[in-house]
Amino acid sequence: MSKNLEEKTVKKEQIFKGKVVELEVQDVLLPNGNESKREIIYHPGAVAVIVITKEEKLILVKQFRKALDKVIAEIPAGKLEKGEDPLECAKRELEEETGIVAHSWTKLHSFYTSPGFANEIVHVYLAKDLNKGTINLDEDEFVEKIEVTKEEAEKLIEDEVIHDAKTLYAVQYWQLMKGKVEKGNV
Amino acid sequence: MSKNLEEKTVKKEQIFKGKVVELEVQDVLLPNGNESKREIIYHPGAVAVIVITKEEKLILVKQFRKALDKVIAEIPAGKLEKGEDPLECAKRELEEETGIVAHSWTKLHSFYTSPGFANEIVHVYLAKDLNKGTINLDEDEFVEKIEVTKEEAEKLIEDEVIHDAKTLYAVQYWQLMKGKVEKGNV
Repeated sequence: MSKNLEEKTVKKEQIFKGKVVELEVQDVLLPNGNESKREIIYHPGAVAVIVITKEEKLILVKQFRKALDKVIAEIPAGKLEKGEDPLECAKRELEEETGIVAHSWTKLHSFYTSPGFANEIVHVYLAKDLNKGTINLDEDEFVEKIEVTKEEAEKLIEDEVIHDAKTLYAVQYWQLMKGKVEKGNV
Repeated sequence: MSKNLEEKTVKKEQIFKGKVVELEVQDVLLPNGNESKREIIYHPGAVAVIVITKEEKLILVKQFRKALDKVIAEIPAGKLEKGEDPLECAKRELEEETGIVAHSWTKLHSFYTSPGFANEIVHVYLAKDLNKGTINLDEDEFVEKIEVTKEEAEKLIEDEVIHDAKTLYAVQYWQLMKGKVEKGNV
């Protein structure tokens, strides 16, 4: 069935290599033989964690996001270190940001956040069987942990405090799961 | 309740200004008085459209994404032109990519795709009351329209053909809506 949709790279130019992102401009050959340019952001990828407590509350972290110039509430998340296993990263980020250690982990989905211009992929986990650990934030990380009921989460969406793709996904996942998941205990 | 989480910009440097993205590096003052650097991608924003046909199929477009070097299936979507109204953009992109004209439009949500490094926001609409229009792709746009049942969409997620945030959101929205929405007719 499939049309040929592929674009072949003719030339690559690295514009920037930073701590978090790399930017490359590519000349590509389109399926019709024409050339075009693609601006591509390379990102190491990230993990995000859905935690529902035994009181049926979702764990969120409030964080200032310079790209948006505002504070939003997100599920715990973090960037992958080079070569890091996503599950190990998820365990580390959850404990560092929230002081929660989870003993049961289920991979839910991975998704690309912005396939039109970036290769960032987010691996989402559901974490259960919760214990207390130790909050240990990175030196330049300032976050505030909150816990919200489903109704509070829906209100935060309406108020655009929950305002990013992975956290909207998490709330929808919660709305869909309807007691399918055993509750944790923290 | 809230801690001070804000980061103040001390200095900005524009690294790149392209057709799609701009890259800026900012020196910021953290809440504890330390300085740090933030790499920020500015993007014009985008729209995405959920269309369910009267046969209860979701409209997707297959498209090669150079940032991922693969073809994925996404809900119809497109970048905002400078100053363009998101709803007008959604109507335009839907007809251009799929040949569908919709007469009833509901704004569902907006979400940031990658708040850690980019200001891209996606405005998602539900389009109903469907008629045939005219496919009219941009010169450098190569897409293939497909229609999938809910079961087929779930299989595409499993196979990572549906593999981006907005389309996963759309499938979850569909799973949650359970006949709440009148069906369209195309």
